[in-house]
Amino acid sequence: MYGKFLVEGDKPVRELLKSNFTIDTIYSINTWQMTVGNSKPNQVIVTEEQLKKISTHENPNQALAVVDIPVTHNSFKNITSLNIVCDNLNDPGNAGSIIRIADWFGIENVFFSETSVDIYNPKTVSAAKGSLFRVKCIYTDLKKLFNENQSIIVYGTFMEGESIFTSNLGENAFILIGNEANGISDELLPFVNQKLGIPSFGKAESLNAAVATGIVVSEFKRRLTSL
Amino acid sequence: MYGKFLVEGDKPVRELLKSNFTIDTIYSINTWQMTVGNSKPNQVIVTEEQLKKISTHENPNQALAVVDIPVTHNSFKNITSLNIVCDNLNDPGNAGSIIRIADWFGIENVFFSETSVDIYNPKTVSAAKGSLFRVKCIYTDLKKLFNENQSIIVYGTFMEGESIFTSNLGENAFILIGNEANGISDELLPFVNQKLGIPSFGKAESLNAAVATGIVVSEFKRRLTSL
Repeated sequence: MYGKFLVEGDKPVRELLKSNFTIDTIYSINTWQMTVGNSKPNQVIVTEEQLKKISTHENPNQALAVVDIPVTHNSFKNITSLNIVCDNLNDPGNAGSIIRIADWFGIENVFFSETSVDIYNPKTVSAAKGSLFRVKCIYTDLKKLFNENQSIIVYGTFMEGESIFTSNLGENAFILIGNEANGISDELLPFVNQKLGIPSFGKAESLNAAVATGIVVSEFKRRLTSL
Repeated sequence: MYGKFLVEGDKPVRELLKSNFTIDTIYSINTWQMTVGNSKPNQVIVTEEQLKKISTHENPNQALAVVDIPVTHNSFKNITSLNIVCDNLNDPGNAGSIIRIADWFGIENVFFSETSVDIYNPKTVSAAKGSLFRVKCIYTDLKKLFNENQSIIVYGTFMEGESIFTSNLGENAFILIGNEANGISDELLPFVNQKLGIPSFGKAESLNAAVATGIVVSEFKRRLTSL
């Protein structure tokens, strides 16, 4: 199934139908199609037993869609506003949660290094809820991205960066998140203009990458709204 | 293995050794024990092959400990400071991330309703990193907890609560997190003194529960440190 991915379940497929994604085929049980209508192309009615056979879930929920992975351009100039950039992000659940964070806070773009987890795997699709269909998710060469947008400040997140509570935070930004175990890779360090950290009051060595992303993005948005 | 749980891997077991948890047995390969010393009771040397057989991991990492689940009292009076309270939390990864958040922000207690996920399952232990050994995690009747501590404000997190950016936030608080799908349960709603929400700027229906917890706790700490 090269270039395709699966969207599973009633609600995710309904969210998909509202998006611009190109749907290859929707497999659903009859009662589901009746509630959705059959105006969409390539709808196939299946029995619950058949759905179970093609689903990755143990208990599939009414519908499953085969969807084209969107093609994104590999040149991004004139980026503005807040952007999340994931360097070698590894965990599929984190990727989904981060895409959901972007959608919640109205962030248009999430960039992923080409070494990051495949966001079209079932775990990420599930963790992202419908947000995968609303946020622009782009795999690209991050060095090229930063080189093409040198006027945008790259804020790198570090365990011991300057406190996000007191740092200057701009309204046009790349918020760079590193790998879960190893942080931001050596080759991207020269691009970091400002090192940010979440103040620690305890003994944990780190926070979960998606949690840290949420806290940093929320603080950016708080500052912007209090301007 | 009633009343026991597993801690797996080099680093987690080292963190465990620094805690007050009661260790039943540590199974490790010889080279691991040599670096740690054999002053601890009940150390059993095993081969990598044997470790693989008793581990829940596909590639176990040098050591595995069988640990007593700590017994906690069921009466909590005179609670102060910030506390996280999880109502019917369902996802083991979220539970681990939330315990890590507590450890990062120096929050002593995380309370769980008795209907919440078992935090001593391998996924939560893994997601919590060493934080499970440092944060006091307590299963209890949340209604009783709130009744016994009526002077502490219960801040409930809701999709459409009052913005955390502008709400009054106290320094003694129960930060109440609801179930991933259903939010705070009906029976706890009467205990909520103040409804908090994370401002939304996009279209996501919700945030991941651990991400939301991190954002809310971070904002509480930011306010306290800027007093």
